[in-house]
Amino acid sequence: MAPKEVYIGVIGAGGVGKCFLSQLESLSKRYATNASSPKISLVFISRSTKTLYSEKYTALPYENLSTKLADSTQKHLSLTEAIGFLSAAPGKAILVDNTSSQDIADQYPQVLSKGISIVTPSKKAFSGSYKLWQDIFSAAAASGAIVSHESSVGAGLPVISTLNDLVNTGDEVTKIEGVFSGTMSFLFNSFAPLEGAGGKWSEEVTKAKELGYTEPDPRDDLNGLDVARKLTILARLAGLPIESPTSFPVQSLIPKELESVASGDEFLQKLPQFDSQMEETKAAAEKEGKVVRFVGSIDVAKKEVKVGLEKFDRSHPIAALKGSDNIISFYTKRYGANPLIVQGAGAGGEVTAMGVTSGLIHILERLS
Amino acid sequence: MAPKEVYIGVIGAGGVGKCFLSQLESLSKRYATNASSPKISLVFISRSTKTLYSEKYTALPYENLSTKLADSTQKHLSLTEAIGFLSAAPGKAILVDNTSSQDIADQYPQVLSKGISIVTPSKKAFSGSYKLWQDIFSAAAASGAIVSHESSVGAGLPVISTLNDLVNTGDEVTKIEGVFSGTMSFLFNSFAPLEGAGGKWSEEVTKAKELGYTEPDPRDDLNGLDVARKLTILARLAGLPIESPTSFPVQSLIPKELESVASGDEFLQKLPQFDSQMEETKAAAEKEGKVVRFVGSIDVAKKEVKVGLEKFDRSHPIAALKGSDNIISFYTKRYGANPLIVQGAGAGGEVTAMGVTSGLIHILERLS
Repeated sequence: MAPKEVYIGVIGAGGVGKCFLSQLESLSKRYATNASSPKISLVFISRSTKTLYSEKYTALPYENLSTKLADSTQKHLSLTEAIGFLSAAPGKAILVDNTSSQDIADQYPQVLSKGISIVTPSKKAFSGSYKLWQDIFSAAAASGAIVSHESSVGAGLPVISTLNDLVNTGDEVTKIEGVFSGTMSFLFNSFAPLEGAGGKWSEEVTKAKELGYTEPDPRDDLNGLDVARKLTILARLAGLPIESPTSFPVQSLIPKELESVASGDEFLQKLPQFDSQMEETKAAAEKEGKVVRFVGSIDVAKKEVKVGLEKFDRSHPIAALKGSDNIISFYTKRYGANPLIVQGAGAGGEVTAMGVTSGLIHILERLS
Repeated sequence: MAPKEVYIGVIGAGGVGKCFLSQLESLSKRYATNASSPKISLVFISRSTKTLYSEKYTALPYENLSTKLADSTQKHLSLTEAIGFLSAAPGKAILVDNTSSQDIADQYPQVLSKGISIVTPSKKAFSGSYKLWQDIFSAAAASGAIVSHESSVGAGLPVISTLNDLVNTGDEVTKIEGVFSGTMSFLFNSFAPLEGAGGKWSEEVTKAKELGYTEPDPRDDLNGLDVARKLTILARLAGLPIESPTSFPVQSLIPKELESVASGDEFLQKLPQFDSQMEETKAAAEKEGKVVRFVGSIDVAKKEVKVGLEKFDRSHPIAALKGSDNIISFYTKRYGANPLIVQGAGAGGEVTAMGVTSGLIHILERLS
């Protein structure tokens, strides 16, 4: 039986996008030498205002792909035009969305309704309105197209797949708890470490920014929204119809007075004035022999989702986390008192791209 | 598009088998209400000398299945006959092997060559000779049948799937280390706990047996072979052509003098005479501020696999393990200094069956 050919379109060629293209190149080379693997042909790639595609659906070569895309003189295709191009391919097509664009996410139902499968690390489509979530999965069910968003929580860590396996095999997930942000993990592991005193809060935030662990404006991490989006996704997969990432309590670590200062730099400059607040929180935890951490939790039975500061015993796995690692604990009926735990780096180009590539592989296995 | 019908045969109705049949019943009911899911029909079940099957491939009802199997007056089918029966089904067939029979494992290549997919929690087929391993995967590649053995390491924990995803997406796994035996985990967490003194070795072994954490003869756990089998499987998935579970160093915790005593009871009775040996090992670790644990490790670069006692810092995740939990750490190029860690219960009927059911679901997704 000759292997089927599957056609791949990619949007986005930034940090994750570049790592993914490199992994895709290796994968397609490996598949080419294996008679039972499908042939995977990259036929479309775009970023902001540039598009490179293969009009006759022959595979684009990987050599100097970024340069060729930057220099492309082909007409830039809108997403609607790109959908049209991929749905006219002479075989099954998969769209890989490596952007974090809400505009593109909003069009996933249309993509899926054309029978085009989607792989993405983006949280936007799955943590937006509950209606968009429903539209995405009903479009997929109707057309037989498949959606994979493994990297939307915990990057390459097996978080989404594990939760899906627990739910699909009939286990009862009672609670999910963890540290879901590499930035918050790094900040609290430095600010309130198990060993030693830790630095001042404002100094740790500044250091984290300098090391590239925060967004350009650190308030985009400190507002808790990134964690709230991840919790929204997991809660929905566990069966809770969460309306949006702002429909449950999310504690922001931005002092009210600094919410509206003009820039991230001004924010960092004024943050030391508020160090005493965080110092008090840390001292209160220490008095109980505990450490403070920024966590998200989902109590499935009570239908309660929340994001914010919590105190943990020093022997708790969440307290013992290192560097910028994530940790996610699944408490279920089958697993009893001790949860199923997944832990490790939850951010970074290569590991995020890994979740995209593994999602792509699983779709290829199902399509071929 | 009408859903396809997939035909399921099950061998074994013991502890894991009973849990699996209950999960299978729930799954087939859920699929029956979902238009895009395949129809899954249980058409064959057998245990030791009894067989119950549906001559016309209509689904066997789940009500009182164990009783009906025990009372069955149908001719007991040999595995060869069962393969013939399943391969003549009017659609794709899957064999679920919930036994730990080496005889059945030896016939997996024949099963797969007939196009019948296999799901099993058994370690036997994948930790036997390297030739059997190669025959299994080449038979599957040739026929397009699929093999799933998620529960063969860590039961329902995502261990096999995570390692496969790391390898298949092109990461370089450098080292795998962990506690792979619930029995050994329980014994050492009680014998050398992080807090408190712990009991005498022979007392902990006796207690573990009474609580059902050991095999009927505890020597079957203490010889390290169960861990060696799991390491063999993981090392092979990581690319090392390990010949057998006895082709690398495995430390047995059975004192030489007790290897050949007649029974498990006699073993337990004489074990206290050797408590001082284990006490010395524990004290030596304590002197360094460490605790002793029974671990397996694979150094992929050095091609070294070993199983035995190791000392760990008290802050190491392996030292902090609780109850009878397993922990598996994957060190890879992408994950850097901090490994990807999976932790939780690695034994028990329900969680082992969960790995079987999730494997079945993944095969059904690929077949339909």
